[in-house]
Amino acid sequence: MGKIDSSTKSLYPRSLRVLVNELSKLPSIGRKSAQRLAYHLVVEQPESASLLAASIESASKEVELCERCHFLADSKLCSICSDDGRDPELLCVVEKPADVLAIEKTSRFEGRYHVLHGLWSPSVSSGADDKIRLASLFERILNQKEVKEVLIATGTTVEGDATALYIANVLREAEVKASRIAQGMPMGGELEYADEITIIHAIEDRKRI
Amino acid sequence: MGKIDSSTKSLYPRSLRVLVNELSKLPSIGRKSAQRLAYHLVVEQPESASLLAASIESASKEVELCERCHFLADSKLCSICSDDGRDPELLCVVEKPADVLAIEKTSRFEGRYHVLHGLWSPSVSSGADDKIRLASLFERILNQKEVKEVLIATGTTVEGDATALYIANVLREAEVKASRIAQGMPMGGELEYADEITIIHAIEDRKRI
Repeated sequence: MGKIDSSTKSLYPRSLRVLVNELSKLPSIGRKSAQRLAYHLVVEQPESASLLAASIESASKEVELCERCHFLADSKLCSICSDDGRDPELLCVVEKPADVLAIEKTSRFEGRYHVLHGLWSPSVSSGADDKIRLASLFERILNQKEVKEVLIATGTTVEGDATALYIANVLREAEVKASRIAQGMPMGGELEYADEITIIHAIEDRKRI
Repeated sequence: MGKIDSSTKSLYPRSLRVLVNELSKLPSIGRKSAQRLAYHLVVEQPESASLLAASIESASKEVELCERCHFLADSKLCSICSDDGRDPELLCVVEKPADVLAIEKTSRFEGRYHVLHGLWSPSVSSGADDKIRLASLFERILNQKEVKEVLIATGTTVEGDATALYIANVLREAEVKASRIAQGMPMGGELEYADEITIIHAIEDRKRI
């Protein structure tokens, strides 16, 4: 089988095999999809291939994380942290940048954000603070003293709930008000994929924890 | 709604929005998947981003279509047409390059290929020869006189069957033997996704049309 596979693979030009290999490293892109995408880029839409390559290059050069909230930015502060119209006393904690977009789409939240880039898990608790941006969250809330209320909007998964409880426990000791988005969210739901009405209910019905 | 959407979109840095836009043009990649992929490339795996960009660039520069069979190649002839061990009297006609890989994986076909890059459809028959590589197929079979048997291995879809019949009709008049892969293939199946045993049966049970 190994021999058959290796001879099959070498039928494609080397540069194409490299491309298929790189594409299949992307999340949720399998081998067949990678072949399909490579064929599209090289044969079906060759003019779009260099546009895509250039946009990958410039986005990876220009995009960085906001030094305050870790949302995506192209300067030190992101578009939301640079906005003076935002309420500095209200902070919303989310797992990933796409969750910020989902909440902003509802136009019901006027505070600022903190993007964790991951969730805290009880099973890998030691050192987890290094990977996700919890340390900078606590520094921001506990030392800078500007935030009065924290809305924890991680998804309603096991890890999302665990992260919310972990953060709420720390804030309770520091006597900062913490809220959790209401369980208008369906159990096991990912915030990124929720509809706007569900998110509006979840923000309006938030409850103290 | 339009106002909300445009304000949401501008939350991301411009270069990232361009990247999401380019990614969402790819087949079977929606807006959410494009955002997910862009986040992966820019934040989660920044080192893989430039590898991917470079591989797209070099594949689109180096890969061309074999001038004889239109399979993917990085010189005038593809790896299969350059192989002297192939039987020049036996020709297999397929829709797309991935179908060649699927058949080669079975190690049961020792002839050469012709890749149509599409299928003939009865509803858009006029001018269809220009888009898919039928003219060069007939030139290859009818004028060069080397091919003795043509195995038509387009998928068993309506368009795949129509293409097979169209080709078979032309070849019958020219008295060249044409075969169709056997109906061991499940109805409506795509060749690219069939398992190896199904493809082996389909090649061995091919029947004259």
